[in-house]
Amino acid sequence: MTEKSSDNIKLNETKSNETGQGFDHLRDEIDRIDKSLVKLIAQRLKVTKEIGEIKSDLGLALYHPEREAELIKNKRSYAKELGLSPDLIEDVIRRIIRDSYKSQNAQRAISSKSESKEIVIVGGRGQLGKLFGDLFEKNGDKISVIEKQDHLNSEECLAKLKKADLVLISVPINVTLSVIEKVAKVLNIHNPNCILADVTSIKNQPVQEMLSQHQGAVVGLHPMFGPDIETFAKQTVAVCHGRLKENYQWLLDLLSKKGINLVDVEAKTHDDLMSIIQVLRHLSTVAYGNHLRHEDIDLNKILELSSPIYRLELIMVGRLFAQDPILYSDIIFSDKNNIKMIKRFIERISETLSFVENDDKQSFIQSFNETKEWFGEFADKFAKESNHLIAKAGDGGGIL
Amino acid sequence: MTEKSSDNIKLNETKSNETGQGFDHLRDEIDRIDKSLVKLIAQRLKVTKEIGEIKSDLGLALYHPEREAELIKNKRSYAKELGLSPDLIEDVIRRIIRDSYKSQNAQRAISSKSESKEIVIVGGRGQLGKLFGDLFEKNGDKISVIEKQDHLNSEECLAKLKKADLVLISVPINVTLSVIEKVAKVLNIHNPNCILADVTSIKNQPVQEMLSQHQGAVVGLHPMFGPDIETFAKQTVAVCHGRLKENYQWLLDLLSKKGINLVDVEAKTHDDLMSIIQVLRHLSTVAYGNHLRHEDIDLNKILELSSPIYRLELIMVGRLFAQDPILYSDIIFSDKNNIKMIKRFIERISETLSFVENDDKQSFIQSFNETKEWFGEFADKFAKESNHLIAKAGDGGGIL
Repeated sequence: MTEKSSDNIKLNETKSNETGQGFDHLRDEIDRIDKSLVKLIAQRLKVTKEIGEIKSDLGLALYHPEREAELIKNKRSYAKELGLSPDLIEDVIRRIIRDSYKSQNAQRAISSKSESKEIVIVGGRGQLGKLFGDLFEKNGDKISVIEKQDHLNSEECLAKLKKADLVLISVPINVTLSVIEKVAKVLNIHNPNCILADVTSIKNQPVQEMLSQHQGAVVGLHPMFGPDIETFAKQTVAVCHGRLKENYQWLLDLLSKKGINLVDVEAKTHDDLMSIIQVLRHLSTVAYGNHLRHEDIDLNKILELSSPIYRLELIMVGRLFAQDPILYSDIIFSDKNNIKMIKRFIERISETLSFVENDDKQSFIQSFNETKEWFGEFADKFAKESNHLIAKAGDGGGIL
Repeated sequence: MTEKSSDNIKLNETKSNETGQGFDHLRDEIDRIDKSLVKLIAQRLKVTKEIGEIKSDLGLALYHPEREAELIKNKRSYAKELGLSPDLIEDVIRRIIRDSYKSQNAQRAISSKSESKEIVIVGGRGQLGKLFGDLFEKNGDKISVIEKQDHLNSEECLAKLKKADLVLISVPINVTLSVIEKVAKVLNIHNPNCILADVTSIKNQPVQEMLSQHQGAVVGLHPMFGPDIETFAKQTVAVCHGRLKENYQWLLDLLSKKGINLVDVEAKTHDDLMSIIQVLRHLSTVAYGNHLRHEDIDLNKILELSSPIYRLELIMVGRLFAQDPILYSDIIFSDKNNIKMIKRFIERISETLSFVENDDKQSFIQSFNETKEWFGEFADKFAKESNHLIAKAGDGGGIL
């Protein structure tokens, strides 16, 4: 292969040289156009940065979905006028917009606000705790952190907790309940009207615990993203309301202002859905990775053979093993109720496999079609959306 | 939520109006910049189209990986000079390049070539058959099609097969072997030196069958993409060499010229890898979809809660159910040897679940870490690549 390719290249170069200046001239033009593109994008980011500063001064939301949709719509029409693919223009502009949000998010509040809040983050040195601490600081709020080595009744911790407007619990799942209990005990004595909130990825038990241990306002949050996001804009946070919403409305408004999409959900419903999209998905992905290891497949060869769609599926498995196993075991081991559901999933695979063993295509297809019907119009929508994304993946520019 | 959001918008509009012309002026500037961007992109596509025409006239390859890498490298440096994110510029330029390939692929050969080939596609009205027929026609070759209702010994079919330089078998897996046998029988009598090739997604049996039934050149191909690709550039085709490579080298050269990445692989190795990346993946995805149906989860709520990464995983499941179940059952039922491997996968999930049942975090983490080690440096590479892609997915612009 390598030999063949290098022959091809030599051949091409020879032929290309034969065409003389005509070919090179066109390539120079591409380079000139690309440089102009880069300059224009730099100009655009300068202007959006200015807008961001004005918005920040006025306390306006950075992310304005209607304005963005309108802008995209207009540019799609303009692309059509010029005989261009509207999808191309939409993809390019959306990609640039992502960096606008990024630079706007990076802006620090210029002056400390008058209504600045005192916020204590328990576990504030963890990755997620830091992310939220950063968000609050850039908003001009005053952050202090309590970590696991600190004693809650120490003078220093008491001072922090006494003046807090909000205490945010950001600790591993398996210690969330005990930390809530301890913190609430101190708040009950010294600051009963403080807001108590958590960011654990399960919600029913923590919210129940906060409600029963604490007298003041309570809200459970679940950020549906990891600590390595580039921008808060368009990210989702699940909100399980506890008590005295009017007291913590400013917190929700702040998250909205950063472009975060807030989704209200019952704590129990949240946990049921998460058992599917987190627990089952993580567990079966871990098992799939373990399987690849046991089968000892040739990763290099499989990557060489993979078109974008297979590569995408494989990197979604491999990416998990770059993370901390404790994070996943905490989520997967968090609730014994998940075991029954996962057993039903195993039965489902066994059933599907039994169709193959019995050479029963009919049943396989019938079951497939019932699920197709259950997905309804989502199947086609997902196919279109994934094709769009797989094409983006195929553009290249990844790391490998 | 809806009520709250609409209140927010009104509030923003009021405040935004208060800022007067300053704000609007900046937004007008964004619109002007975006229009210039669209115009520049249109110019760029015009120039690459010209280059494509010259390349097509000269029979040069459309996809030139080294030139593309060089161009990207230069623009990344230039972006850095202007204080921009190089990743932003790379993503934008790669996205535009995709449309260049698309328009170059759409070009028809201007004049019929002197060395034009006679190609018969058996199953040429199928989706994949049409895709290849289109590729050959644009190259100036002469295509004829034989379909399942045709009789191979009819005068019309014999005429096609007698003058063929290449017969390409593009039929469903489960009839591939019998079609090869029938076609080879006719070729043996009327055109023994013709090239016989197939595009089935399994390779060992078809290549063996072609070698034993046909005397002339033989090559097995497996296009690692579906019929709905936007461009051949950067797609992969697995090549299992059969016999008399020198006779079908022009076919491989043509695919290379279209930007297709050819990967040589032993037919047996190919099938082993495919049992993992096709059969197991498809079967467990079908089972996962069936599971979602049986659990009757609320798809709307789960989508509302999904951040880009969960959404991505869900659309990769749902997309499958937009396809034809027969396609998947053909692949999954193609080889009984896959059953044992899938049973080992089920054992792997059961093992992982047993760690949870026994509250044995230690074993879960140990097994996780062994797989992490097995992935080696790929785990981090996959994490980076997937973060890049998930960010692209988060830009929006899908269908929903």
